[in-house]
Amino acid sequence: MIRLAVDLKGADRPQEELLPGVIRALQEDSSLYLYLLCDEKVISPLLSAAGADSERYEIIDSPDTVTNHDNPVEVLRKKPDSSLMKGISLCKSDPGISAFVSCGATGALFVSAIMVLGRIPHVTPALLCEIIKDDGARVCLSDCGANIDCGEDKLVTFARLAKVFMEARGRENPKIALLSNGSEDSKGNELVKKANALLRGEKGLNFIGNMEGTEVLSGEEDILVCEGFAGNILLKSLEGAAKSAVAHARKYAEALPEPARSVMLQDLHKVFLNYDYNSSGGAVLLGANTPIVKGHGSADADTLYAVLKIASDLGKNDLQQKILAEFA
Amino acid sequence: MIRLAVDLKGADRPQEELLPGVIRALQEDSSLYLYLLCDEKVISPLLSAAGADSERYEIIDSPDTVTNHDNPVEVLRKKPDSSLMKGISLCKSDPGISAFVSCGATGALFVSAIMVLGRIPHVTPALLCEIIKDDGARVCLSDCGANIDCGEDKLVTFARLAKVFMEARGRENPKIALLSNGSEDSKGNELVKKANALLRGEKGLNFIGNMEGTEVLSGEEDILVCEGFAGNILLKSLEGAAKSAVAHARKYAEALPEPARSVMLQDLHKVFLNYDYNSSGGAVLLGANTPIVKGHGSADADTLYAVLKIASDLGKNDLQQKILAEFA
Repeated sequence: MIRLAVDLKGADRPQEELLPGVIRALQEDSSLYLYLLCDEKVISPLLSAAGADSERYEIIDSPDTVTNHDNPVEVLRKKPDSSLMKGISLCKSDPGISAFVSCGATGALFVSAIMVLGRIPHVTPALLCEIIKDDGARVCLSDCGANIDCGEDKLVTFARLAKVFMEARGRENPKIALLSNGSEDSKGNELVKKANALLRGEKGLNFIGNMEGTEVLSGEEDILVCEGFAGNILLKSLEGAAKSAVAHARKYAEALPEPARSVMLQDLHKVFLNYDYNSSGGAVLLGANTPIVKGHGSADADTLYAVLKIASDLGKNDLQQKILAEFA
Repeated sequence: MIRLAVDLKGADRPQEELLPGVIRALQEDSSLYLYLLCDEKVISPLLSAAGADSERYEIIDSPDTVTNHDNPVEVLRKKPDSSLMKGISLCKSDPGISAFVSCGATGALFVSAIMVLGRIPHVTPALLCEIIKDDGARVCLSDCGANIDCGEDKLVTFARLAKVFMEARGRENPKIALLSNGSEDSKGNELVKKANALLRGEKGLNFIGNMEGTEVLSGEEDILVCEGFAGNILLKSLEGAAKSAVAHARKYAEALPEPARSVMLQDLHKVFLNYDYNSSGGAVLLGANTPIVKGHGSADADTLYAVLKIASDLGKNDLQQKILAEFA
């Protein structure tokens, strides 16, 4: 049985709109057991009405909600009854829970995860996300924004966390590239040059060298390692450029006769989503004592379903045990 | 009269293929005087045959050529008879030359510019390039790759160089943004946080705050300031994403009947070029004692013509004098 803690509050949409994602996940995956952090009086009758098996979930009533306006550090003290804090506390008290899933406030989620759950010894937690390459394959960006300034040894940790993650996602011996301003080992800022040397010497990592921004979507890498600042610039530039190029192509689509018009518009939408990591299942914080799977704040029931599926798959693949073994 | 030194060698195409760009520039702009660094026996008869006015140019015979395979630092000693080194030396001996124009080896060009020409006192030279935003306006990226690691005071220098450059390009009181991982002043790595504080306090700069990668193509900025490493990641990510999105849209274009097909294909090509700074006139190195205007290595005669036009416009606007005044 895979047990997940699921925060239904704090997202842009109300908990009852996200609930169908939970119901679908329970229906489709009989190995799932969910702890639902939500308002019991809102969610309980809806679950009963939907015929959900009450042996497969437990509602943990959480009257308070953390929002993006809350100071992440103050949340620990000020909002103990929030769905976020109750979920984190539950994971701390029960290490057998495979992951904490939330579409709520990112900053507060990660700060409380690290401060309350605690870190795996000698591991700096990293934020990982997947983007889709031209050939449809996923590439994992590690770190994509949690560690804005860090040393070269941290980049090796990010590489190893991503390696275990991608293996749990089904990729064998994943190819690891290091984001730089040129593909040669001699290229890069001081951090990247030192990280390149460390990665070249590291055992058990399939390091393929430095990679430029132009190559990310067409390259052979499974993992792209970078400091959070550079990762964030990369991710958001890709998103911005895809948005612009697709908007431009859209005007041609608008001029097409149906059904070509609808097909092209849907397809362009999909292209854009490829570069929007929020749509492709969210980001994952690894390195704390429970993995955190974060859906986008604008998530709907389908997004939550997709995020639950990822969290469940990671649980089935013993992700956290494998991380512990990697860093043992 | 605007005098420019023009390196016709070291690009992917041979000098005689680039020459029509020179001839067109001379024909269209009667205020131009060009020093042509090239093989005299190749170029001289072609210029005469084209009826070019011999009072408007001087050929400086340069038997040697610098390539991307040359070590930039060794070029100074090993290739004094190259078009690149002869051009740089000419600019050093004659500060009235408005700019040095080249489509040759980038590294060698910038190293010799800084080492031979020398820097303006207290100025760290920066590499500037322009990309086109969604609304067709140009945004100047400063620095886009020359200064990979630098301190916050350098970012202020890059902002001021870009300000003078954009004013010379016709933009009044240009809006300056700082590339970061979030738009709030509190966001950024340590460098960006310190640079933000300096830029907020700097007089004469129209600083509008931090900007995320997603906003670059749709924002209101005229200038985007960043360390060369981040600038390079941004520039190349935009290029890679546009390439992918356009390639994807192209398959729809291929299916259209003519003339719609050709129109869309040409237009998509244009979208891609918008994100390829090499196509939009090249990059400019400012802060050395002569401005350097660099066309792409794959330049053809049209590219060289466009680059000469930019260099000539900058000369007419007294760019170098204005830079000296800005940093006096």
